[in-house]
Amino acid sequence: MSLDGCTAGPEQSRKDPLGIGGEGLHQWVFPLAAWRAPHGLEGGEVNESSRVLEEELANIGATIMGRNMFGGYPGPWSSTQPWNGWWGDNPPFHHPVFVLTHHPRPPLALDGGTTFTFVTDGIASALAQAREAAGGKDVSLAGGAKAAQQFLSAGLVDQMEISLVPVLLGRGERLFERIGDDLHGLTLTRTLATPHVVHLRFDRTPMENNE
Amino acid sequence: MSLDGCTAGPEQSRKDPLGIGGEGLHQWVFPLAAWRAPHGLEGGEVNESSRVLEEELANIGATIMGRNMFGGYPGPWSSTQPWNGWWGDNPPFHHPVFVLTHHPRPPLALDGGTTFTFVTDGIASALAQAREAAGGKDVSLAGGAKAAQQFLSAGLVDQMEISLVPVLLGRGERLFERIGDDLHGLTLTRTLATPHVVHLRFDRTPMENNE
Repeated sequence: MSLDGCTAGPEQSRKDPLGIGGEGLHQWVFPLAAWRAPHGLEGGEVNESSRVLEEELANIGATIMGRNMFGGYPGPWSSTQPWNGWWGDNPPFHHPVFVLTHHPRPPLALDGGTTFTFVTDGIASALAQAREAAGGKDVSLAGGAKAAQQFLSAGLVDQMEISLVPVLLGRGERLFERIGDDLHGLTLTRTLATPHVVHLRFDRTPMENNE
Repeated sequence: MSLDGCTAGPEQSRKDPLGIGGEGLHQWVFPLAAWRAPHGLEGGEVNESSRVLEEELANIGATIMGRNMFGGYPGPWSSTQPWNGWWGDNPPFHHPVFVLTHHPRPPLALDGGTTFTFVTDGIASALAQAREAAGGKDVSLAGGAKAAQQFLSAGLVDQMEISLVPVLLGRGERLFERIGDDLHGLTLTRTLATPHVVHLRFDRTPMENNE
């Protein structure tokens, strides 16, 4: 997230999947060995951020993402415009991924254990299917901002890792919009700072009336 | 600043000078001995945040603030509605303060060395007057958000200390609005984290074409 609260830049497109300037929010992660390995790349750095990324990726059995993060184009899926995500034939997830969309589409099985399932009946259904698929492991909410807002608003987030990058985007997708002032019990539990990124981990503390 | 980028809550008023929920952004500072002393209060805590506040207050010879932070009411000053700021007869500044306003008013000298001078000809004039008054010491830009935006946009900020509080306000005065994506060379130079606040210090690094 940028200092001004954006998790992607404006004008996201096939050319700029993260929006104008959005790549800058991820410069800290690309060199890491822990990021390169699931992408099938050898080598890479180990630094203070490695621990955060390793924690994020550990014990994940399924991922949920929004249609905008899966990408391609808005509206119904078209057989004349095939779109199988940004990640090629062997996506870095290596587990079941559930894509929130208004437009039905058959599941898409790619190499390396990644299957995209398209969920048209809302976040609760996506979470139930992801939990089932994760088989006791954790479910990761990958993004984007609008998907995150839905889960945050519903109080369905147990842990949140914000990687705050000390830049401004000026415009873009803001993470904390349309969700009011309620973090539903998420409190800051760990801060890890480098010159390039400040990692803020939040965990949900038990509250009365929580499930 | 809140996690969603607000430095004050919505609906600022005499009853809620920091806006609804805005007090929550300052809970970390009120108990500190370093905050209490300039307010004429004895005792208080010393913790990790003390160092940040002491740095902020050290070597300050003059302060600039916006009319909204000085408070009272919008529009011209009225003799039937006297308003001498939020801070009583002995404000905690103890040095010259320059208030950006569209409405002229004679200087206001209060106890303890604080004089409020009302500047109607813009930020460059306020900065020049504050520098002169500071006599070689630093000039502090106290706020609020709109005053900060003007100085940030103009590239006139040499150091910025953001105290990020891990809460949402939902609505309010956002610090990084209307200023685009340019921090004018301000880069993250120090992070100091506590469970209640994460202090992010930025310093302006020399760039080509900088003065």
